[in-house]
Amino acid sequence: MELTDYTDYLPFWKQLTPIQQQQIQKETTFRQAPKGTLLYGGLEECLGLILIRSGQLRAFLLSQDGREITLYRLLDRDVCLFSASCILHSIQFDITIEAEKDTEFWLIPPGLYKKITEESAAAANYTNELMSSRFSEVMWLMEQIMWKSFDKRLAEFLLSECDLEGSSLLAVTHEKIANHLGTAREVVTRMLRYFQSEGFVKLSRGTVEVTDSKSLKKLTET
Amino acid sequence: MELTDYTDYLPFWKQLTPIQQQQIQKETTFRQAPKGTLLYGGLEECLGLILIRSGQLRAFLLSQDGREITLYRLLDRDVCLFSASCILHSIQFDITIEAEKDTEFWLIPPGLYKKITEESAAAANYTNELMSSRFSEVMWLMEQIMWKSFDKRLAEFLLSECDLEGSSLLAVTHEKIANHLGTAREVVTRMLRYFQSEGFVKLSRGTVEVTDSKSLKKLTET
Repeated sequence: MELTDYTDYLPFWKQLTPIQQQQIQKETTFRQAPKGTLLYGGLEECLGLILIRSGQLRAFLLSQDGREITLYRLLDRDVCLFSASCILHSIQFDITIEAEKDTEFWLIPPGLYKKITEESAAAANYTNELMSSRFSEVMWLMEQIMWKSFDKRLAEFLLSECDLEGSSLLAVTHEKIANHLGTAREVVTRMLRYFQSEGFVKLSRGTVEVTDSKSLKKLTET
Repeated sequence: MELTDYTDYLPFWKQLTPIQQQQIQKETTFRQAPKGTLLYGGLEECLGLILIRSGQLRAFLLSQDGREITLYRLLDRDVCLFSASCILHSIQFDITIEAEKDTEFWLIPPGLYKKITEESAAAANYTNELMSSRFSEVMWLMEQIMWKSFDKRLAEFLLSECDLEGSSLLAVTHEKIANHLGTAREVVTRMLRYFQSEGFVKLSRGTVEVTDSKSLKKLTET
C-alpha cells in the first residue's frame, strides 16, 4: 500500500526539498497491526513516526504494578509522534502505545524524521504543534482527575466510547474501564450499578449499554 | 541590565544569522517581578519567552472554583516557554505563572520568537526540547497523583521545598501546601499532624520544620 498524498499527514510536505521528499518516500513502509498489538513501550524499540491509515491506537501510562491510565486515542489520519519519542532527548517518561483496533499505518523511520526536523524549520514546527496537541490532551485529563468527581468522568468516558464505536452497546469489561480511568475495578462496578439503578445504562456480562445518553450528558455538565 | 551571553539560555544562538541575533538583542528587555506577581494566565496578555536571571517562577493549573495544582517550578537560568504559549496554536490549556520569589528576567517578545522559530530549524528544535522537558514534568506529576499515596507525595514535597529553600524550616501554610498538591487543606493538616507524631516534622503557626529528613526520604522510597 503506497502513500500517495503526504500532505494529508505532513502539512509541511511542500516546504521540503525534492531530495528530502524522495528520502521520505523511499523509507516509508506500510504496516499492519492486529488489534491488541503492543506497538511501543516497554522493551519495544523506537518505532518512528506513525501515519494512521485506518484503525485506532491507544496511548497510556503503565505503572510498575500493572495499572494503566489512557492518555489519548489516535484515529484515522492521525499522526503518532511518541512512537518516535527517542528522537526527543528531553522526553523522560515511558508511554505505551497499543493497537486498540486492527490498524494499518505508514511508518517513517525515527532517524530519518530526526534528520528532516534538523534540516527543516517547517518540519520542526509541525513536530511542536503535534506535541502541543498531545500535551493539551494530557492537561485536560489532569484537570479531569484532579477536579472532576468520578461519576462525571465515567459518564464522559461512556459517552465518548459510544461516539468512537458508533454504537450505544459497548463490549467492555469493568476491568478495562478501570484501566482507562486509572482506578480500581470495584470503583467502576459500584458506579455502573448506580448508573443502572438510575436507568442510564444496562449491564450484562462483558457489555455496558447506554440507555439514556441524555441524562449521562446532563451529569457531565453539572 | 543587559544580557551578555545569550548562549547560556539559547543553545542555538550560534546557529542564528547575525541579523537574527541583532533582532533578538534589540528587542530583549529586562524585567523585575516582585514575589507574588501574576506573570501569565487569566487576563494577562501573551508575554513572551522568559529567560530567568534569578528568582523562582511557579507554573500551575487553576480550576474554575479557585483550586490549584503546581505543575513545575523554574529557577535561575531556566527558560519559560509557556509564557509564550500563544505562539503555539495547538496549546489548548490555560496555565498560570507567578513569581514565587522576587524574580529578574529577560523577555523576548512572542512575535519575534515565533518568527525566529519559523526561520531557524535549530530554534524550533530547541522549542521542542523545552516542551518535552515540561511535558515530562507533567507526566511525572500525573503518575504521582494516580499511583502514589498522599503520604509519599507530601513527604516528597517537603523534601523538595527544603532543597529549594536551602533550609529545613519552611514558611508555608497548610493551605498553600494543599494548593501545591491539588488537595484540601484538611487532608494536608491531618497528614502533617501524623508526620509530627512520628517526629518527622515540627509544626508552628505558618511554618513546617523538617526534623527528620532521613525518615521522610525513606517514606518516599517504600
